[in-house]
Amino acid sequence: MSPTAPTLRVTYRLTCADGEDPRAKAEDIALEQTVELPADRLPAPIARRVVGKVELVEEGSAGSLAVITYDSDAVVDDLPQLVNVLFGNISMKTGIRLEAIAFEPSPPAWIPGPRFGVAGLRALADVPRRPLLCAALKPLGLSTKALAARCSTLARGGIDIIKDDHGLTNQPSAPYADRVFECAEAVAKANAATGGRTIYCPNVNAAPAVTAERAQLAVAAGCRAVLITPLLVGLATVRQLAQDTGLALLAHPALAGAFFHDAHGIAPELLLGRLFRAAGCDAVVYPNVGGRFALSAGACTGINARLREPWGSLRPAFPVPAGGIDMSAIPRWIPRYGPDTIFLLGSSLYQQRDVERAARQLKESIQASER
Amino acid sequence: MSPTAPTLRVTYRLTCADGEDPRAKAEDIALEQTVELPADRLPAPIARRVVGKVELVEEGSAGSLAVITYDSDAVVDDLPQLVNVLFGNISMKTGIRLEAIAFEPSPPAWIPGPRFGVAGLRALADVPRRPLLCAALKPLGLSTKALAARCSTLARGGIDIIKDDHGLTNQPSAPYADRVFECAEAVAKANAATGGRTIYCPNVNAAPAVTAERAQLAVAAGCRAVLITPLLVGLATVRQLAQDTGLALLAHPALAGAFFHDAHGIAPELLLGRLFRAAGCDAVVYPNVGGRFALSAGACTGINARLREPWGSLRPAFPVPAGGIDMSAIPRWIPRYGPDTIFLLGSSLYQQRDVERAARQLKESIQASER
Repeated sequence: MSPTAPTLRVTYRLTCADGEDPRAKAEDIALEQTVELPADRLPAPIARRVVGKVELVEEGSAGSLAVITYDSDAVVDDLPQLVNVLFGNISMKTGIRLEAIAFEPSPPAWIPGPRFGVAGLRALADVPRRPLLCAALKPLGLSTKALAARCSTLARGGIDIIKDDHGLTNQPSAPYADRVFECAEAVAKANAATGGRTIYCPNVNAAPAVTAERAQLAVAAGCRAVLITPLLVGLATVRQLAQDTGLALLAHPALAGAFFHDAHGIAPELLLGRLFRAAGCDAVVYPNVGGRFALSAGACTGINARLREPWGSLRPAFPVPAGGIDMSAIPRWIPRYGPDTIFLLGSSLYQQRDVERAARQLKESIQASER
Repeated sequence: MSPTAPTLRVTYRLTCADGEDPRAKAEDIALEQTVELPADRLPAPIARRVVGKVELVEEGSAGSLAVITYDSDAVVDDLPQLVNVLFGNISMKTGIRLEAIAFEPSPPAWIPGPRFGVAGLRALADVPRRPLLCAALKPLGLSTKALAARCSTLARGGIDIIKDDHGLTNQPSAPYADRVFECAEAVAKANAATGGRTIYCPNVNAAPAVTAERAQLAVAAGCRAVLITPLLVGLATVRQLAQDTGLALLAHPALAGAFFHDAHGIAPELLLGRLFRAAGCDAVVYPNVGGRFALSAGACTGINARLREPWGSLRPAFPVPAGGIDMSAIPRWIPRYGPDTIFLLGSSLYQQRDVERAARQLKESIQASER
């Protein structure tokens, strides 16, 4: 580790029980997340250098904010240990919410971030400016042929990105090795017919070695992106995929809700915005406010901001609001979320009598709105 | 998938908001965790076969219990998809707590469970009947030499298992490749001097490929077990380690607390007891009641039960209560938790003036109590 390795700066919001002192709680976090020993049992150089440093404790109306900095010697150089230092042991305490992280002066080289990012994904999809449209290939249980037919319909309708439902893995109804080739071929044929550039993202959630094999099959099938669920496969597996395959990564948020509690957990904008981007996701699906899940409007705009804002040399990533957005509402969301957004059409698309036509009409209205 | 593949039976506890109906909530879970489409948009065979089936909804004093069964076609054959079906999307809803799972008639072959289990780990440690003693090697920041000296002291004191603190990864103060050899050698020398069989477990948390390399270094250093944190590296990585390396696995619970909420999350006994055992952990560390973390007495005995009870052909695993147990209290915990327990000594061990002597005295008192 070079002496110029960055410092990790972490902001927690503390909710104290009766009689609990916020500064003592912050000092306890600084020990728990590093040495796991009381301060009086530490050699002086370790107490000075390795234990987290409480830089600030500020009482506010919604609990106290505490800022703790950690030496690079604690965090070292991988994502599992980063997550461990941020929230590992203290997950089992109460009243601690991880709100923000920063590396000072800038993120270390082992956090390369998205390989494609907003500009790269736009180039893949040949969409220079407007918001993109994404649709989910579903449901689980359909045959490979039926799924490929749906791909064809969606691609002909001009959907920019077709992603597998994240529950489609290797079910006997549509085994991965069949699905990836038949769906990619259906999309390629539709693209050839329409002159479009629809991207098909097969889901590669599995054990790490199997994920790597499935990603290679995706490359062989001509896919340019895949779907991955970071919290099911691990952030380090996502980073490996981003590094090794040359595929763009669309991330699914399944399991993330376990962390989304008011007084204890990880803020959605930090988990889905900053950590998923750190791992190399080029676009991140999240449950939009007003859909069938439970994120606030503030959390949603926070996720958008963390994905897109300047952060060292990391590329910005696309937010993908989803979770039951009715397709008729999308034109109203565009001014609110801006053009660097991928809108994931919910099941309302499958409600349409003519899915291809409904998709095309929506896309045309979006294209018209940018002129 | 053979036609006799087992059915997955899942019990949730539902906490309904005003006006929310428990049966409707259960039906929504059954759709959300499989097809992610409303029932009226599904082909009949899929609605019949793939959607989860609500078998029972029973209102009780602490919310309603709902039992849902899932067809094997949804779960297929890996742990990421199992976790996804159990709690993926619904993590982002509210008032749903995963309480229990069972496979009927028995767990599938892709859930082999512990490779060593209680009997295998007892054989490795040469401890046929009594509870085992474990100590954590810490703190982060000590040099490799200083950590190896601590290993020597602990092994001479007769500690059965010495585990790295789970925050020791590859820090420059004690890089993994140095630490594993020097600590293993210190323990081997102490064993040769005392005739003991102390096991040293280096921590292999990292990206999957790096974890595999570190496990191979552990084998090369003569280690018979390693420490792993399933929620940082992914359950599938744990299973791969158990299958590939011939090493016994001691699991750390970091990050697990994110799931431990009363009304929404995963019950500790299911996550640490059943799912960690499913992934192949031979022993599972958990924060004991009364320590510095927040599990109830009932959750602790529940974890013990889920790890040890008969479950298909899976071997039982050791519970490892930890998290600030004062060493003087251990003799009182033995009758309560029984002999098939590994007690993890907290920082109280490092408080002793003569650590080796204190460890030896504790071990002798445990040996005496079994006579």
